Amino acid sequence: MKKIVALSLFLVLFMPLGFSQVLQSPNKDLALSFALDEKGTPVYDLSYKNKAAIQKSNMGFVIQKDILFNQNFEIQKVSFTTEHSKWEPVLGEQKEITNHYNEMKVELLQPKSKRLLTIYFRLFDDGLGFRYEFPVQPNLRHFMIQEETTEFNLGGNHKAFWIPGDYDTNEYKYTTSLVSEIPGLYEASSKESLAAQSRIKNVAVQTPLMMKSKDGLYINIHEAALVDFPAMALNVEAAKFGLSSHLTPDAVGNKGYVQTGKKTPWRTIIVSDDARQILASKMILNLNEPCALTDVSWIKPVKYVGVWWEYFTGGGSTWAYSNDQDVKIGETDFSKLKPNTTHGANTKHVKEYIDFASENGIDAVLVEGWNEGWEDNTAFKKEKIYSFTKAYPDFDVVELQKYAKAKGVKMIMHHETTSSTIDYERQLAAAFQFMNDHEYDAVKTGYVGPMIPRGEHHDGQMMVNHYLHVAKEAAKHKIMVNSHEAVRPTGLHRTYPNWIAQESARGTEFESFEGNNPDHTTILPFTRLMGGPMDYTPGIFQGDFSVYGSKKNKLSTTLVKQLALYVTMYSPLQMAADLPENYNRFKDAFQFIKDVALDWDSTTILEAEPGDYLTIARKAKGKDEWFVGGITDEKAREALIDFSFLPKGKTFTATIYADAKNADYLNNPQAYTIKKIKVKSTTQLKQRLAKSGGVAISIR
Amino acid sequence: MKKIVALSLFLVLFMPLGFSQVLQSPNKDLALSFALDEKGTPVYDLSYKNKAAIQKSNMGFVIQKDILFNQNFEIQKVSFTTEHSKWEPVLGEQKEITNHYNEMKVELLQPKSKRLLTIYFRLFDDGLGFRYEFPVQPNLRHFMIQEETTEFNLGGNHKAFWIPGDYDTNEYKYTTSLVSEIPGLYEASSKESLAAQSRIKNVAVQTPLMMKSKDGLYINIHEAALVDFPAMALNVEAAKFGLSSHLTPDAVGNKGYVQTGKKTPWRTIIVSDDARQILASKMILNLNEPCALTDVSWIKPVKYVGVWWEYFTGGGSTWAYSNDQDVKIGETDFSKLKPNTTHGANTKHVKEYIDFASENGIDAVLVEGWNEGWEDNTAFKKEKIYSFTKAYPDFDVVELQKYAKAKGVKMIMHHETTSSTIDYERQLAAAFQFMNDHEYDAVKTGYVGPMIPRGEHHDGQMMVNHYLHVAKEAAKHKIMVNSHEAVRPTGLHRTYPNWIAQESARGTEFESFEGNNPDHTTILPFTRLMGGPMDYTPGIFQGDFSVYGSKKNKLSTTLVKQLALYVTMYSPLQMAADLPENYNRFKDAFQFIKDVALDWDSTTILEAEPGDYLTIARKAKGKDEWFVGGITDEKAREALIDFSFLPKGKTFTATIYADAKNADYLNNPQAYTIKKIKVKSTTQLKQRLAKSGGVAISIR
Repeated sequence: MKKIVALSLFLVLFMPLGFSQVLQSPNKDLALSFALDEKGTPVYDLSYKNKAAIQKSNMGFVIQKDILFNQNFEIQKVSFTTEHSKWEPVLGEQKEITNHYNEMKVELLQPKSKRLLTIYFRLFDDGLGFRYEFPVQPNLRHFMIQEETTEFNLGGNHKAFWIPGDYDTNEYKYTTSLVSEIPGLYEASSKESLAAQSRIKNVAVQTPLMMKSKDGLYINIHEAALVDFPAMALNVEAAKFGLSSHLTPDAVGNKGYVQTGKKTPWRTIIVSDDARQILASKMILNLNEPCALTDVSWIKPVKYVGVWWEYFTGGGSTWAYSNDQDVKIGETDFSKLKPNTTHGANTKHVKEYIDFASENGIDAVLVEGWNEGWEDNTAFKKEKIYSFTKAYPDFDVVELQKYAKAKGVKMIMHHETTSSTIDYERQLAAAFQFMNDHEYDAVKTGYVGPMIPRGEHHDGQMMVNHYLHVAKEAAKHKIMVNSHEAVRPTGLHRTYPNWIAQESARGTEFESFEGNNPDHTTILPFTRLMGGPMDYTPGIFQGDFSVYGSKKNKLSTTLVKQLALYVTMYSPLQMAADLPENYNRFKDAFQFIKDVALDWDSTTILEAEPGDYLTIARKAKGKDEWFVGGITDEKAREALIDFSFLPKGKTFTATIYADAKNADYLNNPQAYTIKKIKVKSTTQLKQRLAKSGGVAISIR
Repeated sequence: MKKIVALSLFLVLFMPLGFSQVLQSPNKDLALSFALDEKGTPVYDLSYKNKAAIQKSNMGFVIQKDILFNQNFEIQKVSFTTEHSKWEPVLGEQKEITNHYNEMKVELLQPKSKRLLTIYFRLFDDGLGFRYEFPVQPNLRHFMIQEETTEFNLGGNHKAFWIPGDYDTNEYKYTTSLVSEIPGLYEASSKESLAAQSRIKNVAVQTPLMMKSKDGLYINIHEAALVDFPAMALNVEAAKFGLSSHLTPDAVGNKGYVQTGKKTPWRTIIVSDDARQILASKMILNLNEPCALTDVSWIKPVKYVGVWWEYFTGGGSTWAYSNDQDVKIGETDFSKLKPNTTHGANTKHVKEYIDFASENGIDAVLVEGWNEGWEDNTAFKKEKIYSFTKAYPDFDVVELQKYAKAKGVKMIMHHETTSSTIDYERQLAAAFQFMNDHEYDAVKTGYVGPMIPRGEHHDGQMMVNHYLHVAKEAAKHKIMVNSHEAVRPTGLHRTYPNWIAQESARGTEFESFEGNNPDHTTILPFTRLMGGPMDYTPGIFQGDFSVYGSKKNKLSTTLVKQLALYVTMYSPLQMAADLPENYNRFKDAFQFIKDVALDWDSTTILEAEPGDYLTIARKAKGKDEWFVGGITDEKAREALIDFSFLPKGKTFTATIYADAKNADYLNNPQAYTIKKIKVKSTTQLKQRLAKSGGVAISIR
C-alpha cells in the first residue's frame, strides 16, 4: 500500500442534543450529517451535490431481552481522520485503486447503563460507508442481536431494481419498479420455486439494491466486509419510502452473536448523478481489509470450459453414474452399481474437453459429477451425500491428471455440498489434500438446498463464517474458490483474493429453467456485482435448446451479447459455458472468447443505465490490448463507443463482433458480423445493438 | 468371535390379524409375543417366568406429514434364527462374553401405500432387544420421524429410579418413587440449575430406567447401539403405568432423518427376579456391533490423577490463566495478558502431579485449563472459545512431555468444547495431531452448555453423530476418548473400544455444587452404567470442603465408600480425583486405589438392591488378584461377602478397608480400619458398613 497523504485530525466535542456534526467527502460532493435526536437516537443523513440522498435516518440495535441500543445515547467524543492512499489488487478491474476518504468516529454512551457504542463514518467521493463497533466495556461482553435498526430513508419514490428478501437464495429474477410498487409486486417477485427458499415474510428486498431517484441520483445500498455477522436485507416501508436493516436470523431466531470488541460490516451507500460512477466505484473494496495472504503468486485468472452445460441442455447427460438412488456414502460400493451410460464425467469425455481447452488456449476444465453420491443428491435431508475424495469408477483421476498436465490444461474440482456444511467441513482437509495430490488448484463449491445445520440459513452468521472458513482453509492449500449459492459477496476478495468469484445470483443456468430476462445482465453489474466478481457462466452460442431434445427454452440474448458479457460482467474467472461442438460451429465468434482478457490495468465505463444498457472498455493487465463490451436490454439501441481510452496518437486494429442487421434475440440470435476497422483515441463509433443484443470489440 | 452354535430356522407365515407369534429365550424364562391388532398395529408383550414384564404395547412410528407408520400393516414374513457364540471385549468386566439369543424377524407391509417395515426381536436369557429396520423400498427413500410410538406398558405401579426427561443433560439427582408418583415429583426433580437444560415439557424420564415391580421383577429399559438416530427418553402416562418413546428433536423439531436401508438402535428390556442379574447382563453389549478397529493394542486401562479437583474445592485454583475475559481466539496474544497467579495448569504444578503419579504407580495425569480461552469459557454464545493447539504461556507442552516421559507417566489431554461442536470439528484434526506430536494418547472431551449448532441438543441425532465422529477420528490417531456431557452410552464401546469411558450422569464434581445423595452410587450401576463405563471420578478423601476456604459442602460418603466405588462403578478409566496432599495424609487407605485393577477376567455380583446397596467382587485380568467393593445408602448395613468366587482349596490374604465403628458419612467420614485376614473360597464375611459407608477388599 502506497500511502500518499494521511492527515489525522482529532476533535473532542461534548455535543448538546440536536447539534449536528458534518463530514464532507474529499471533493465535497457528498456531505454526511450526524446527530442525536431528542430521544438520544443516533441519526444521520447524506446529501450529494446538495440533493438529499438519504434523509434523516435512525441508527442502532435492539439487543437481547429488549435492550434498546438505539436511544438514550450521549456523545462522548468525535474524532476525524483522513486517508489517501493507493493499493493494488491481486486481480481486478484496474491495476491500482485509490482509497481516499474522510472518517468521523463517534463514540456514544448510554449514561444509565454505561453501555458504549461507536460509529465510524467514512465518506468517499463516491459514497458513504459506516459501521458500528461494540467496544470492550465493563458492563457488556456477550449479547445476541434482536434486530439492527439502521434506516435508509429515501425521501422519494425511486425506481428500484430489486429481488425479494430471502434468507436462503438470491437467484430470483429482478423486478424493476417504483419503491411504492414493491409491496404490490412482492408475491409475484418470488413465485418461482427455488431449491432453498425462505422468503422474508414482511416486504423486504435484498442488497445490493440499485435505485434511481426522480431527480437523477443513482443510489446503491449494500454492505462491505461481511465477517462473522448475518447478511443484511432491507425492510421496505413503501408509504414513507423507508428502508431499514433486516438481519438474517439463525435457527433459534437470533440475529447475530456479538462479543464486545467486534465491528459490524460496513453499511454502504454509493451515490452519483452518473450511473457510470456507480459501476466505477471501488468503495466497497476500499472498506475491506488489505490482503491477508502473504504469497499470492498462485492466484491467477482462469478461463475455463467444463462438463457442466450438458447437464442443463436437456440432452440427457447426468451427474450421477448410476440410476440407483439408494446409495449411502461409506456403505455403497459404487464400483458394483450398474452404470447408467449417461454419466457425463467419464474419463473419455473429459479428455475431449481437455483436448478442446488445450487447442483453444483455455486454462482449465471443470468437471461436475466426478464424485460418488450424485444418485441421491436431491435428498436435502441427508447429512452425508457425497464423498469429496472418491471418484466414480469411470472417472480416472490419475489418468486425467496426467492427461491434462501433458496438454497444459488445469483441472477444476467441484464440491457440491447440497448445503450439508457439517459433512463438508468434516471432509474438507482431506478434500483439499486430494486436490493438492492431483494438482487441482481451483474448486467450485455449491450450496444447493436447505442448510445443514438445520434451521440455519445461507445468509446467516454461521454460514457466513462457514464460507470464509472454506476460503481460508483453501488458501492454506493454495486453492482458489468459486462458491455457488453462498451469501452474496461484500468485497472480501480483496482480503482473501483466492476467493476468486462467486455465483450468488441468477446465473446462466436459469436460461435452461424458467429463463432470464433480457435486461438481467444490464442490472447485475449494478446489484450483485457491486460486491464482487460473478461466475455468470456466459458464452452460450446455441440458444435454441430444442435442438437437444426435451427442452423448448430459448436464450434471452443474441450470440454477440454473450460475447459482450465477458467484458461487462467482470470476473477473473470466466467460463466458456457452451458445448465444444457449438464453439466449433462458430469458430470466428469463439475467437473473441479465446482472446478476451480476465485481469485488467484499467476500466472505462463508457455508457451505463441500469436495466437498459451498458458499454465498458478495459485494458488487459500488462498488455497493450483492449476489449470493449456493450449490451442492451429487450430494446435495440445504438451504442456510442468513444475510443478515448486508447493511448493518444496511435492507430490500432479493432475487431468488431456485432449483431447482424436482422439479428434479434427472439428470432435470429445467431446472426452476427465480424469486421476489422482502424481506430485511434479520437474515434467515436456508433454501433447498433439488436434487441437483447450486444457488441464485442477486441483491440490487440 | 468364537461361534459355538449357530442354528438358523426360517419360517414363512402369512398370519391372520390377531394371531400371536411367540418367541422364547434360550432358557425359556422369557417369552415374547408379537401380533398385529385389529388396526394392523404391531403389538408385543414380554413375560418373565410367566409374570408379565411388559404388557401389550404398540410399536411403530409417525413420519413426516402425519403418515402413520404404526398401523394398517400386514405380516409378510416371519423368520427365526438362533445365535450362540462368545467374544472377548478389549477391556471389560469379564474376559469372555456369551452372546446367546433367539431372533424373530417380522417383515411388515402396508398394502395400500406398499410401505415396508421390519422388526427384529432378539430374546436373550436376560432380556429383550428389538429394533426397527426401514428396508430399501420403491415408494420410500427419505423421511423425517415425527415420533416413535413404541410403548412399554408396565401393567403395574413399579418403583422407579428416574431422572426427568431432558434433551441436554442427564446430571440430575435420581428420584426414587412409584410410577404413579412421577408426575407429582416432576417439577421438583429438575429444579436444580444445570449449564444446559431443555427439560421435556410433558412428564418423561430418561433411560436407562430402572424399575422394580411389586411382585419382585427388576426391569431395566434402555437402548443399544445408538448410531445416527436421536436418543430416546420415555413419556410417562402414570395413570395407566405406561411408558412410550420420546425421541430428541432437532433444531427444527424433527426427530430423526432416515434414508431407507437404515436400522434404528435396539430398544432394550432387561428383566430378572434377581437384581444382581440386571448388573450382570451383557445384553446391551451383545446387541452392539463387534469391534470396528483392527489394531486395539494401544487401548489400555488408565488410572489417573489430574489438575482438576482443585478447581472445584473452592481453594481458588482457576482454569483461566488471566482475569481478562475479553479474549478472542485468533486475536488475543495470550502471552501479553497479565497472569492471575491462580492458574492451576502451570508447568511447575503439573510436574508435582507427574511426580505424584510416578511415585504411586498412577498411569496418567489429566490437566484441565492448559489451553487458551478459559477466560471467556462461560460465554455459551461464542462459536470460537478455545484453541486446542495452543497452550497457555505458563504451560510448557514440550517440557512436560519430556518430564512425564522420563517419569514413566502419560499425559491426558483435555478438550472442553463448551458445546461449540462447529469449532471443535474445525480444529479436530489439528488437535489430534498436536496430541500425537506430544505423545498424549487419551483425551477428555467436554460439552458444557447449550449446543452450537444452535437449537440442536446434546441428545439429538446430529450430536449423536458428532460424538461418534470424534471417537472415530480419535481412533485414526490412536487416541482414547473419555467424553463428558455427551449423550449417555449405549454399548458402543464394544464397537469403538477407544471410546473408553463417558461421564453422562451426575458425577463426583456435584459433591462440590449441590451435592449427591448417599444412595446415588447404589443407583448409577442400575441406570447410567447399563450403557457403559462411567468416569465418575471417585477417591475423594477430604470430604469436608470447608478446609479449603469458601465452601461448606460435605461429601455424601465415608472415605471407605470412596474406595469401594473403584470396584462397584466399573470403568477401565478411573481417576483418583482428590489432591495429592490428601492422599499423602491417608497413605494406607490410598494403597487400595494404587492396587485396584481396572480390567477384569470375571465379575461376581454378590449383593445388590438398587437404591440400597451393592457388593461386587472382580478378578483382575490375567492376574490372581481379586478386589471387592461394597457400598450402602444412607442406612448402615451388614454386608455378607461370600468368597466363593475364589479358587477352591487355596488360602489368600485379604486386606480389608472398612468403616470404623464410629464412622458415619455426616460426622465422621474419615474413620476407617485396615486389617488383613485369611480367606478361602468357603469364607463368608459379615462386614458392617457405616451410613453411606463401604468396604473395599484387595486380595493379591
